[in-house]
Amino acid sequence: MVTTPAAPTHEHLDALLSARGRNAPAAAITDPRSSANYISFIYGFPDRQSLPNSTVIEATQHALEKHGDWALQYGKTTGVAELVNVLLAKLRRDQHFVAGPENLMITAGGSQALQLVLDLLVDPGDVVIAEAPTWMGFIDALNNVGGRLVTVPLDSSGLDTDALEATLDQLAAEGTPPKFIYVISNFQNPSGISTTAERRKRIAELAAAHGTLVLEDDAYHDLRFEGDHIPSIYSLDRAGYTLYLGTLSKIMGAGMRIGWLLGPETIIQRIAQLKIDGGTNIFGSFVAAEWIPDHLDEHIETLKAIYGKRRDLMIESLERHMPQGTSWTTPEGGFFIWLTIPESVDTRLMLPHARERGVEYLPGETCYTDGRGKNQIRLAFSFAEDERIDEGLRILGEVIRGELLESSGNWRPA
Amino acid sequence: MVTTPAAPTHEHLDALLSARGRNAPAAAITDPRSSANYISFIYGFPDRQSLPNSTVIEATQHALEKHGDWALQYGKTTGVAELVNVLLAKLRRDQHFVAGPENLMITAGGSQALQLVLDLLVDPGDVVIAEAPTWMGFIDALNNVGGRLVTVPLDSSGLDTDALEATLDQLAAEGTPPKFIYVISNFQNPSGISTTAERRKRIAELAAAHGTLVLEDDAYHDLRFEGDHIPSIYSLDRAGYTLYLGTLSKIMGAGMRIGWLLGPETIIQRIAQLKIDGGTNIFGSFVAAEWIPDHLDEHIETLKAIYGKRRDLMIESLERHMPQGTSWTTPEGGFFIWLTIPESVDTRLMLPHARERGVEYLPGETCYTDGRGKNQIRLAFSFAEDERIDEGLRILGEVIRGELLESSGNWRPA
Repeated sequence: MVTTPAAPTHEHLDALLSARGRNAPAAAITDPRSSANYISFIYGFPDRQSLPNSTVIEATQHALEKHGDWALQYGKTTGVAELVNVLLAKLRRDQHFVAGPENLMITAGGSQALQLVLDLLVDPGDVVIAEAPTWMGFIDALNNVGGRLVTVPLDSSGLDTDALEATLDQLAAEGTPPKFIYVISNFQNPSGISTTAERRKRIAELAAAHGTLVLEDDAYHDLRFEGDHIPSIYSLDRAGYTLYLGTLSKIMGAGMRIGWLLGPETIIQRIAQLKIDGGTNIFGSFVAAEWIPDHLDEHIETLKAIYGKRRDLMIESLERHMPQGTSWTTPEGGFFIWLTIPESVDTRLMLPHARERGVEYLPGETCYTDGRGKNQIRLAFSFAEDERIDEGLRILGEVIRGELLESSGNWRPA
Repeated sequence: MVTTPAAPTHEHLDALLSARGRNAPAAAITDPRSSANYISFIYGFPDRQSLPNSTVIEATQHALEKHGDWALQYGKTTGVAELVNVLLAKLRRDQHFVAGPENLMITAGGSQALQLVLDLLVDPGDVVIAEAPTWMGFIDALNNVGGRLVTVPLDSSGLDTDALEATLDQLAAEGTPPKFIYVISNFQNPSGISTTAERRKRIAELAAAHGTLVLEDDAYHDLRFEGDHIPSIYSLDRAGYTLYLGTLSKIMGAGMRIGWLLGPETIIQRIAQLKIDGGTNIFGSFVAAEWIPDHLDEHIETLKAIYGKRRDLMIESLERHMPQGTSWTTPEGGFFIWLTIPESVDTRLMLPHARERGVEYLPGETCYTDGRGKNQIRLAFSFAEDERIDEGLRILGEVIRGELLESSGNWRPA
């Protein structure tokens, strides 16, 4: 008879853990496929109808027929040359990046690039600056390495560079200069706000003056459906203190798990020493290198139309259904709208009520580390279905109204 | 005019590095595709002719047609359910593993599993036990996290468990118990030796008695072309202190970058907290889940025939061409033969001479951390071409003879 083996007791196991292992916050293992039960504004996922399945099948066939000796083989740590070259060509054409293969590293999505930068730079207790609010995945990854988050506010022009300067000065005075400044420059996650060109230039200048790096996360770059392109911090930075992070997740498919990191060769080389992984997704890299030249530009146009229309539907429905005292951002691209409702409502406590009515969203508190954001909500419209947006936001408006009534003491059962 | 940006000076950059970033050993970024210029015994890569390109094209088509909504989308941290289920079914059928989805995590090759285990358990200065010699990728990854390697010798029956017991006792007495014991149980990399069932049982017992974990790396499991299957440490371990690492790299394609880690649910859950990556290679996981049921068993039979024949060619040529005083292992599976030549030769210094003659191999010293292995060589036959093996080993024999003559003072120009 086969029996299930025992397992080390918690006590035994705890004695074996590293500082990183002990400190890792308890994270529920969520399965995005479970979101199908809701009108969901929770996930910053690409639109599901537009995933380029048929052209990826074609590209796979071409890639394996052309590169059969190498596409299913181990590969170079810094990335498959064909993909590196295709990405460099796009970055030169679209953003005038001055960069060669020595400046670029392919990573398993933006996430691996972020993890490698954290591993390279951050010891427990080290300070890192980010925007408030910021992407919760960044908060989790920073927590895992024991880093300390210091935030700088956002306003409608993006990261507040006066506040950044004051924060840098203060941290220097305290003897705890930051290891890097994390900025999502376009259509920020979660706020949807883009930082202006003037401020981007200032961020680069401040970083160089303080001898700290910038990690510019530009995951949503190509998904601008309104307004003019703003030069990246990377291209405005003449001192070379900026690392630039891009990804195929939002413009080809998140399932490819392919991203990239650009930076000075000295930094890319050091990061390569920490990247012992047999090469990133070699199969997917050859497929992407084949797919991008034939399909990416057209696919981006399709996506811009989809997300632009969806943003409009969101804004129309918010105007129609949100109670007085509610405000929201109107992003010119990307996936997110940031909703602020009257302060008496706690959006984390409200979430179960919304889910009972079949709607889900991300509580704003998740995007801070200091308890702020209680009356805020990240609405991801990228993964929503056009025809259910109005219903979803009508229900959300009703749920918010219910909470407001309850908190004002006027609540009564419907 | 666009100019290349400057970059932070080394001094500035060094001030920003973490302990991990500072300690990472300088690693040359090698491109495996450059090995095409040699008769190469250096890379532990799968055979290039047998990579299943055409069936992977088919599987991609089926996977994207069936799972188009999810195969290019973000996925679950612990792995795509379809792939998890297919792998669990195989492990139950072939190895009678008692394990459910809560015990398995899909990772980017065995490498990510190893990195996550190191991150979970090892702080700078912590001890980890491994075999001597061991896989150089493990040595590099352990160095990156600042771990201290303590080795236990191998003999022809595998890891020497008496020596392991003595080492565990000594480390306990010194107050530096190991965080885990890393064992490559089948056709070990680099020695080609398998550890016997009796010793595997003893390893599990010793680990549990000392409250330390075992990380069993079984990358070559399915590639046994001679002799009987030996139960894994994981299946012999009744106390549940063993983590088991497998991979598709050797049996489907290393370019898939798909591996897995099995272990107690408590440990898998903790590791999931450190794994912030949007899911491992979702596209490749759906393709693999489609490919495995239809093709894996047959493909393994093909590979066993290829590698078994190649091992025979290697042994025949070694017998034909190696000078007296040379010995080698005869593996019953896997990718590697371990060659020991007279002590007067330094195989690292000899490598340039071999490369001049068009042959390359891995110097044995790479597989130790204490300077041993100078007169040893890892010969990977997996990536060699049948028809060039005899020529390659003839040249290697001549190069070794030349070194022996030189070291004995009898060298003269040919």
